Amino acid sequence: MPNKIDRSLTIIAGIWVKDDFSCMLDLVKRIKKCNAHIIAIRFPKYYECILDSRKDVFGRLKEIKKVLEETGLSLMVEVSDTRDVFIVSKYADILLIDTESSQNLPLLREVSKANKPVLLKRGLSMTLSELLKSAKYIEKGGNSNIILCEGGIRTFSSVNSIATLDISAIPVLKEMVNLLIFVDPIYGSDGKESVLSLSKAAVAAGADGLILDVKCGENKLYNDYLNKLNIKEFCYIVEEVKKIAKVLGKKIENSLEVKANEDQIYRTRHKWR
Amino acid sequence: MPNKIDRSLTIIAGIWVKDDFSCMLDLVKRIKKCNAHIIAIRFPKYYECILDSRKDVFGRLKEIKKVLEETGLSLMVEVSDTRDVFIVSKYADILLIDTESSQNLPLLREVSKANKPVLLKRGLSMTLSELLKSAKYIEKGGNSNIILCEGGIRTFSSVNSIATLDISAIPVLKEMVNLLIFVDPIYGSDGKESVLSLSKAAVAAGADGLILDVKCGENKLYNDYLNKLNIKEFCYIVEEVKKIAKVLGKKIENSLEVKANEDQIYRTRHKWR
Repeated sequence: MPNKIDRSLTIIAGIWVKDDFSCMLDLVKRIKKCNAHIIAIRFPKYYECILDSRKDVFGRLKEIKKVLEETGLSLMVEVSDTRDVFIVSKYADILLIDTESSQNLPLLREVSKANKPVLLKRGLSMTLSELLKSAKYIEKGGNSNIILCEGGIRTFSSVNSIATLDISAIPVLKEMVNLLIFVDPIYGSDGKESVLSLSKAAVAAGADGLILDVKCGENKLYNDYLNKLNIKEFCYIVEEVKKIAKVLGKKIENSLEVKANEDQIYRTRHKWR
Repeated sequence: MPNKIDRSLTIIAGIWVKDDFSCMLDLVKRIKKCNAHIIAIRFPKYYECILDSRKDVFGRLKEIKKVLEETGLSLMVEVSDTRDVFIVSKYADILLIDTESSQNLPLLREVSKANKPVLLKRGLSMTLSELLKSAKYIEKGGNSNIILCEGGIRTFSSVNSIATLDISAIPVLKEMVNLLIFVDPIYGSDGKESVLSLSKAAVAAGADGLILDVKCGENKLYNDYLNKLNIKEFCYIVEEVKKIAKVLGKKIENSLEVKANEDQIYRTRHKWR
């Protein structure tokens, strides 16, 4: 039987820093209107400028946090360097460990000492059992406030250039462990139609949350805009998944907040393999 | 036509820290006698104790380096945390970026500033083009002294529990880029017989170096001893690959040293895609 925690669905709007970041603060209110709960600040890969941009963003976290607080949104920030965990966890409500970092043990150790929930995304070549090993590593370090996130695995499929979303991971993980399971469909999607379909599938399969990347400005630095939604498309997808969620008896609300009011043991009583 | 650089083969003996590390210094002379050139200090994954052991080892690097210098061996040390790069590059002759870290951009940026050669191991789910992106990232940061290392990729094959060694990566990378290509067969091997066969195959396919893990002591903390060689097996494999190398006109010598005496432009004139 679905527990109260299984009846909520969190919507996260991801914003990539090399988009013209200045537009982010303007976007926030529109994102909030579309029923999102969390803004995730993400960093694209392989652009040398990014490491400097990261410093810029970290320097502005206080300001960003303030704007989000006024709007009632939570702030999630990607961390990939052990040296950044302290400053990021000072302002972020949730730390995001992305695909490339999910087996970065020094980083996992560092976030295990931060007193903030951690969203741990599955690596492209990680088995579920390895994902749980990483989660367990964070838990052993003292932080059991972990959200797992399926984001696609590398397969022979050439339709999806980066990864194939493993929808089956959702029920399997739910069987294995008492943690929230989120889904990030961007790497597994081949265009925006795929993002819509996979988002619906993820919710139907029992996902507790979705990360949807929203396009911000018209920066042409890198060409992965294919899967990024404009604000209209973002709102449309949220409306569509809402319909599926309703059928399942789920509400679009922040499952992390629901969790905070819930019997703590429910989601922290791990059934590690 | 094979260049002088293509006629040398470097042998690296890998020692994992959670082996009883004290035996390492005793092993060194025996490893040297078997024609090895480099000792690589590696760290196993997912053991909480490891991060502390790392600190212990880093504290002893000066001592270890001294012993190796007396024996005429070079020191390679795995780095996975940006904060460790400074201390490690003070003593190590070569930095090792292992599978899990090969897309860790903050780390790549940090080693790009270190004035030491970097051995960059391919991630389990990395395409060759992504491996070259990581290498290019290090090069852009100012360090073009990069060795690429094939270590196996994740496939559907269930014979090799961790990975399938991609021998074809050696000729393909040699075609794509002017860098030394090493091979680490441990993850792709199913027992010691496989290590022997894959080492021979790697040399036959044109590898410039091999990493072979040597068992040190009888520490039972983790059970991946299957593919680790005792010193006798290590020497045997080196003798066997020597025969293949001879047929190819290759000598067992430190290709990194050959490189230093060689026209620098040869190996640094990258043909990046």
